[in-house]
Amino acid sequence: MPEQFEQLFATLREAIGAEHVLTDGDLGAWEQDWRQRERGRALAVLRPGSTAQVAACVRACAAAGVAIVTQGGNTGLVVGSTPDASGRQVVLSTARLAAVRAIDTDNMTMTLEAGCVLQNVQQAAEKAGALFPLSMAAEGSCTIGGCLAANAGGTQVLRYGNARELCLGLEVVTPQGDIWDGLSGLRKDNTGYSLRDLFIGSEGTLGVITAACVKLHPQPAAQLTAWAAVPSAQAAVQLLALARRRLAASLTGFEVMGQAALGLVARHFPQQRVPLWDETPWCVLLENSDAEGEEHARAQLESALEEALEAGIVTDAIVAESLAQAAALWHVRESIPLAQAEEGANLKHDVSVPISRIPEFVEKADAALRAAFPTLRLVNFGHWGDGNLHYNAQAPEGEANAAAFIATHEERIASIIYDEVARCGGSISAEHGVGSLKAGILPRYKSPVALQLMRAIKRALDPQGIMNPGRVLATHEA
Amino acid sequence: MPEQFEQLFATLREAIGAEHVLTDGDLGAWEQDWRQRERGRALAVLRPGSTAQVAACVRACAAAGVAIVTQGGNTGLVVGSTPDASGRQVVLSTARLAAVRAIDTDNMTMTLEAGCVLQNVQQAAEKAGALFPLSMAAEGSCTIGGCLAANAGGTQVLRYGNARELCLGLEVVTPQGDIWDGLSGLRKDNTGYSLRDLFIGSEGTLGVITAACVKLHPQPAAQLTAWAAVPSAQAAVQLLALARRRLAASLTGFEVMGQAALGLVARHFPQQRVPLWDETPWCVLLENSDAEGEEHARAQLESALEEALEAGIVTDAIVAESLAQAAALWHVRESIPLAQAEEGANLKHDVSVPISRIPEFVEKADAALRAAFPTLRLVNFGHWGDGNLHYNAQAPEGEANAAAFIATHEERIASIIYDEVARCGGSISAEHGVGSLKAGILPRYKSPVALQLMRAIKRALDPQGIMNPGRVLATHEA
Repeated sequence: MPEQFEQLFATLREAIGAEHVLTDGDLGAWEQDWRQRERGRALAVLRPGSTAQVAACVRACAAAGVAIVTQGGNTGLVVGSTPDASGRQVVLSTARLAAVRAIDTDNMTMTLEAGCVLQNVQQAAEKAGALFPLSMAAEGSCTIGGCLAANAGGTQVLRYGNARELCLGLEVVTPQGDIWDGLSGLRKDNTGYSLRDLFIGSEGTLGVITAACVKLHPQPAAQLTAWAAVPSAQAAVQLLALARRRLAASLTGFEVMGQAALGLVARHFPQQRVPLWDETPWCVLLENSDAEGEEHARAQLESALEEALEAGIVTDAIVAESLAQAAALWHVRESIPLAQAEEGANLKHDVSVPISRIPEFVEKADAALRAAFPTLRLVNFGHWGDGNLHYNAQAPEGEANAAAFIATHEERIASIIYDEVARCGGSISAEHGVGSLKAGILPRYKSPVALQLMRAIKRALDPQGIMNPGRVLATHEA
Repeated sequence: MPEQFEQLFATLREAIGAEHVLTDGDLGAWEQDWRQRERGRALAVLRPGSTAQVAACVRACAAAGVAIVTQGGNTGLVVGSTPDASGRQVVLSTARLAAVRAIDTDNMTMTLEAGCVLQNVQQAAEKAGALFPLSMAAEGSCTIGGCLAANAGGTQVLRYGNARELCLGLEVVTPQGDIWDGLSGLRKDNTGYSLRDLFIGSEGTLGVITAACVKLHPQPAAQLTAWAAVPSAQAAVQLLALARRRLAASLTGFEVMGQAALGLVARHFPQQRVPLWDETPWCVLLENSDAEGEEHARAQLESALEEALEAGIVTDAIVAESLAQAAALWHVRESIPLAQAEEGANLKHDVSVPISRIPEFVEKADAALRAAFPTLRLVNFGHWGDGNLHYNAQAPEGEANAAAFIATHEERIASIIYDEVARCGGSISAEHGVGSLKAGILPRYKSPVALQLMRAIKRALDPQGIMNPGRVLATHEA
């Protein structure tokens, strides 16, 4: 522990209690990113227990010129919430900021602290008779603060939007240690620049989100899940248009899964029944959330699927007969990443393109990858209702050293995919963010004017560059 | 025409054609704000015909240190798009940027230029079989660029959100004259700060919006309008909760109108039939947009109203029997501002509070105003489904010099209302923006930290201060 930091540590211990300034022992849990791509070294881990304590921590670090990496559930996929290897960055954990401050069912809002775990937020909403629809695989660990800092997406975006669209207001500690109380429960407020939207998605590089006011929705009376085989990517896009027209806002889920993805689930989880996958290139999971009830939901969904069958957009379909069967269908979808892990070394690409260009993108990216790597397996699935593809790659079947194959070709595979994304007007990070993983390649795909504007904002708000440096904007260009 | 500007004019004429650089003759149409509160003087009116020409104009003005006031339909209500009295600001009109560049029905997006008139945008969407739901009184004149610069609201926000939520991407000319092409048609893009959201609602102070990519929605199969008498403000809030629960996303309109507001319509437009108004303190207009059809829409709406009648939340209600009757009900709602004008001098306050606090706000603001001005008439109506009240005031009945009364007491009346808004955690501008009208009082109601962040952003992006100076942030503090 370098001596020059003793004064800082003393100030921090005074501010938040010595037991919440961790400098010794094993800090590995905070230093290792979720996917175990990188392990950093923390100067200290701070666990403030209130917004005022966060502000005190930030002021102390700013005075010492020490960088702050804010960490929620540490489930991010782009190495954005762990310290770098210098040993000179502190981790500010939001774990102790876990209070639900208020639930207002007439205003349909909930005010809660950044460290609240997403699943607990969902449950608190349910207990109040409402729905907080943000939902994703990491919900048992990820925090609402992390979701907002990363503008998380997930499986309900089609109907309810990303984390951004679910947030009405924020409380933020600025890089100077000031507290901005923007915890508005207002649906309309046109009194200046949308600071809320600037902090959302800024991945801890502009300040520390300490609390949020989020929107609640009415609970649907019934939820019904269907599984449809479609003959092509184009048919999947047509099915989406049909389902949106027929079900309107009741359509809450539209997940597309390629044959290779479902084949891996069938192989590694034989106890799961994977429907229809071996007779069709693509399957679609549709979710209908109905305000009236089970009977109406079923009539609506079946009628829409019948129209799709008649039009040849769908070749076969099943509608879940029970909640258990619906859960089993979702479980198949959610098992794809696990099946990929079981299968061995693989690469994940979280990209988006306009929905209308998904078929073109898939065709061209597949062709380009097959030309360069004839035996590479493409595992393609995702939230097509949002234009979001998890366009992943798996080492060739029977490859003796799959890890080495992946490591060797990782960059080239990503380049081929991202170049095609760019040609289709898409984004190289749909919902996972930039972190440090993609900060380096971002300038290749993002408009120079946009980067220039982002750098100007970063310099204006964080002139010392102490907020999660090197994330989103690579340090040398920030 | 000051000589020192001759060089600038020459450059501008070269860039966009002499016929589009207006410096002589009557420029009154561009110099006078919509509500005729202020008349400025323009150094010139520029009418660029392309994004590149906008960029050339901005570069020329930046080089000359001349400020730019961007103007769309000039229908804003806060004096935000007309030049000041100095005669040294140019007006940049977006009137010639009026192309619909693309409609993509598979992606449900439309890409269009800033000068497109809102009604034309709605019609283009309709022609493509889709809905562009942004709707407000000024739609025959206002432009999509102006709507986005002001983050306009209107009557469909409850279901579809403000202009912000309807926009996926922007094209913007920066204060340096660079073109940012952020015309993304993506629903998910987490590659950095949300520049889109920063420019939306910045009222021309950070750059010039030249084009946008907006979201389309499916057209509803049927729209049904109801009119309900409710016994109290609290009952109106309860009716909203009930209607949201029963109709979910099909509830697209929830407008509340006080007795005084409806009484003015009945008085000045006797040819209009104003239902139920004389027996109840508040009426509510509900709109149900149904994906199935007329019959289903009616069954749903009637059943919800029956439940409300049984619960005593609603005392009487009618459901429109025809499109003509529905239009007539909306026409009553939309006639309130016109009836106010017919009645004489009045004051408009566009405020918002959390929906749950509307009853408290109305009670306390009414009481405070009645204590200060016992004869002042309160004309209260608005988009309560969004927490948005147009809490207006009308000179006392029979006041000999109504205009003088209003002019004398304008500031004090506004203070009483805004102080109460602040106590209820609300906003002094829900959907109209700040402009120059509210820039001066904003610091009284906005958090100092928020203002500090806004000023830092303004300085970072527009260090010369040439973009609509004095709007949003008063000049002396920008």
